[in-house]
Amino acid sequence: MEPHEDGRRQRYAHRRDELLASATEHVLEHGLSNLSLRKVATTVGVSHATLVHHFATKEGLVSAIVDRVLTRAYSSPDVRSEEGLRPLQALWARAVAPAGQRSIRLFLAITGEAMHNNPDLAAAVDRSIRQRNALLEHGLIAAGCPVEQALPLATYLLGTMRGLMVDLLVTGDGQRVDAAFEILLRGMDDTRARWLQDDQT
Amino acid sequence: MEPHEDGRRQRYAHRRDELLASATEHVLEHGLSNLSLRKVATTVGVSHATLVHHFATKEGLVSAIVDRVLTRAYSSPDVRSEEGLRPLQALWARAVAPAGQRSIRLFLAITGEAMHNNPDLAAAVDRSIRQRNALLEHGLIAAGCPVEQALPLATYLLGTMRGLMVDLLVTGDGQRVDAAFEILLRGMDDTRARWLQDDQT
Repeated sequence: MEPHEDGRRQRYAHRRDELLASATEHVLEHGLSNLSLRKVATTVGVSHATLVHHFATKEGLVSAIVDRVLTRAYSSPDVRSEEGLRPLQALWARAVAPAGQRSIRLFLAITGEAMHNNPDLAAAVDRSIRQRNALLEHGLIAAGCPVEQALPLATYLLGTMRGLMVDLLVTGDGQRVDAAFEILLRGMDDTRARWLQDDQT
Repeated sequence: MEPHEDGRRQRYAHRRDELLASATEHVLEHGLSNLSLRKVATTVGVSHATLVHHFATKEGLVSAIVDRVLTRAYSSPDVRSEEGLRPLQALWARAVAPAGQRSIRLFLAITGEAMHNNPDLAAAVDRSIRQRNALLEHGLIAAGCPVEQALPLATYLLGTMRGLMVDLLVTGDGQRVDAAFEILLRGMDDTRARWLQDDQT
């Protein structure tokens, strides 16, 4: 075995996370079209066998990428106090920032790919949407939302932001899409005001 | 030339629309993955040259399919009086019906495909989102919405429905997604009530 190969092997032997980071970077940049473990292996600089060892199949890799991208991306409810913004504004600011747009772009590519006959990807996207809704549900309850209203409201808020991000990523018309987001924001202010009222009566 | 070939040629010579209908049906069912003009030609039962004659490239065909699917699908504002439903309810009812889900599933697959380095598809999706927003904008103005609020509101309404349809198609959780849609509907009723109030003062 030549030293270079050996160095690589040491570097990557148990570094699933590092591998995943490189693969994610590749896919964020180039999307999923014509993706193969073999191509990712070449780009990342490891052997095909190493990727198979860690992720089994292309779908296994993409599913891990979905989890990674979505964990780091736009909707953790702890952004509440970020930069003095209202919680929803903070989520949105994060989504429309370059890194957020890049993640959501990939998420939409994966969602699109999951639409027809791709059960592994479909399962990954399903899991991510449910987790995200549940996360925001808990954030809303913590913020005073009546428990039984929290999951539909989370679904509505994330749905609206998701749909507006599609518009933004496709048309690039930030001004119009931001004006639409403002409607969501005002409605949410009214909703929150009602929680407080109901609490006091 | 054998009679069968000749019959086909007559049948399809100028029937772009019929070809497009068959190709659309194929793609609605099987999605875009590994789509090629050659494969569509085989399925539809015409020569590759015929498809090239009518649509030039795979992207040309998909772009025509986008236009066709979206023209027939879920957001023409003339559904206003359909079945006694409120306009937005009628749009939603159409979107969640089997044919609507099928169209939107394909639209999402195409949108996903357009996310990375596919300028022809991206242009088709961009055009369709803008047309749809403009269409609803006019519908809202006709329904009493102040002119300057109509385009942001259309963007918001279609964005929310789009995002909720992603959730529905991925998770299949109709009850939760319908409850989220109800939030949009109630907000829209409040908004419409304000238009009437502002009109009377």
